[in-house]
Amino acid sequence: MISGVYCAAATPVRADLSPDLPAFTAHCHWLLEEGCTGIALLGTTGEANSFSSAERKTILEAALNSGIAGERLMPGTGVANIPETVDLTRHALASGVSRVVMLPPFYYKGVSDEGLFAAYARSIEAIGDNRLRVVLYHIPQVSGIALSHDLIERLVTAFPGIVVGIKDSAGQLDNMTAMVARFPGFAVLAGADPLLLPLVQAGGAGSITATSNLVARDLATVFRGATDPTQAEAVEQAQARINAFRTLSNSYVQIPTIKAMVGFQHGNPGWDRTRPPLVALTAAERADLKTRLAAIGGTVRGE
Amino acid sequence: MISGVYCAAATPVRADLSPDLPAFTAHCHWLLEEGCTGIALLGTTGEANSFSSAERKTILEAALNSGIAGERLMPGTGVANIPETVDLTRHALASGVSRVVMLPPFYYKGVSDEGLFAAYARSIEAIGDNRLRVVLYHIPQVSGIALSHDLIERLVTAFPGIVVGIKDSAGQLDNMTAMVARFPGFAVLAGADPLLLPLVQAGGAGSITATSNLVARDLATVFRGATDPTQAEAVEQAQARINAFRTLSNSYVQIPTIKAMVGFQHGNPGWDRTRPPLVALTAAERADLKTRLAAIGGTVRGE
Repeated sequence: MISGVYCAAATPVRADLSPDLPAFTAHCHWLLEEGCTGIALLGTTGEANSFSSAERKTILEAALNSGIAGERLMPGTGVANIPETVDLTRHALASGVSRVVMLPPFYYKGVSDEGLFAAYARSIEAIGDNRLRVVLYHIPQVSGIALSHDLIERLVTAFPGIVVGIKDSAGQLDNMTAMVARFPGFAVLAGADPLLLPLVQAGGAGSITATSNLVARDLATVFRGATDPTQAEAVEQAQARINAFRTLSNSYVQIPTIKAMVGFQHGNPGWDRTRPPLVALTAAERADLKTRLAAIGGTVRGE
Repeated sequence: MISGVYCAAATPVRADLSPDLPAFTAHCHWLLEEGCTGIALLGTTGEANSFSSAERKTILEAALNSGIAGERLMPGTGVANIPETVDLTRHALASGVSRVVMLPPFYYKGVSDEGLFAAYARSIEAIGDNRLRVVLYHIPQVSGIALSHDLIERLVTAFPGIVVGIKDSAGQLDNMTAMVARFPGFAVLAGADPLLLPLVQAGGAGSITATSNLVARDLATVFRGATDPTQAEAVEQAQARINAFRTLSNSYVQIPTIKAMVGFQHGNPGWDRTRPPLVALTAAERADLKTRLAAIGGTVRGE
């Protein structure tokens, strides 16, 4: 069963907006040193859908070539169309990566569970590889597509041992704990940092979050100590720090704010850049963020 | 200036869900014979975002190879990421097609006008071809992205003669007539069939609609006669027929319903198929549709 603290890693880009692979892999190594179980690269925070299929493959290959083991990587491979979802997933498998986070097709809205089941089923059948492990991705506020529990039940029944978990980024703990109760052995991963603790205490598997780009060490402390009363104080302190970083990351548009904070951490202002349609923080926003980051104990290097 | 009646052509697929190119090109030729000004292939009705980039190119090439002139084709080339939007548009231009309908990047929601401007501007600059003619695509109920008039003003000012029009599928006539008034020489095309008549009467350029897969002849009658009082009766009759077909097409999920109706028209039940996440009509829905289509004077062949 997939469990632990995964980072929805942000993706740095160069001035020409091409992926900055050395900065990316350095960040991934730092995240693992900080205590991440693994890297959920190429997700929403990673701006995956702003990169072409070819670029996505290059980013995954760079992580592998930098020496990160395939079992510690969990790339997003779900795009709006099935053939490219299949192609990206097959590329991951051929590269030694069996765990993927798979968005449903997200262009059409209001589609039926039958249509979503067909999309996942056709993708999985076309991938045709028993090593595959699919983490579903529920982020309706961005994708516009909600994954119902009835749909999940159909998928885990049709593809046992293959459809093994879900990243739930909708922010409702009740939805996560209901899945924990209904689907034994199915890994429910919180997409929101403050929910890691209560979710793990309720039998959830861990988290895949954006703030872990900054506070992976604290999230690992929470994960390890969540059900250990002797760790209560350490967990509480870590949770307070996580919450402070998360609150700060929502001061402006979240993904550019997180990228700027990662840039302060690594002393590399190039991290500020985003691909359109996301926009980098303004100079004023960045200055304000810097002050407030230092005030909560964040690292500000090379400024 | 782009003007006339364009069909948002549906895309037939084979049993293995690959594009049925002969059925597609036959349909396009029929649409032109019926009176369409051109074919707006690979749009929302055409399930473009359910096809890979490679498949999209194959579909456009098939239309050209079947003998349709490039100036009568207006493919959708906007996807969620800029590099593939650029690649698809360059492919169209290299193939002799200069007019494209371009969705904004549609994964992230709530993005700023600045981010949308940057996405369009970077795409147009990377395409780097003065032959390019971009029709913007406003369909917020599907894409989740609304194009504001201030954004349009920035784009037409920055790219005069290149950003030349918009397909407005949001269904609000007021929004279309406001653009006609604010942007002289800018082609405002209705995405909803009932609005072709009032839009053309208010100075609009025409339409790109789904129902034109079935009633292109009537839409052409409305377009030609919209501002000619001697044609009022013919226009009224055509409009009534358009409205009847459109109402019927909304009896069930629209795109599968239109595909089934096109299948009845051509006597080819293979048209019923859709790519997930869209789902073909059930047998009961199809039988009901057949009866009701015949009742409004629609063609039902080979059943």
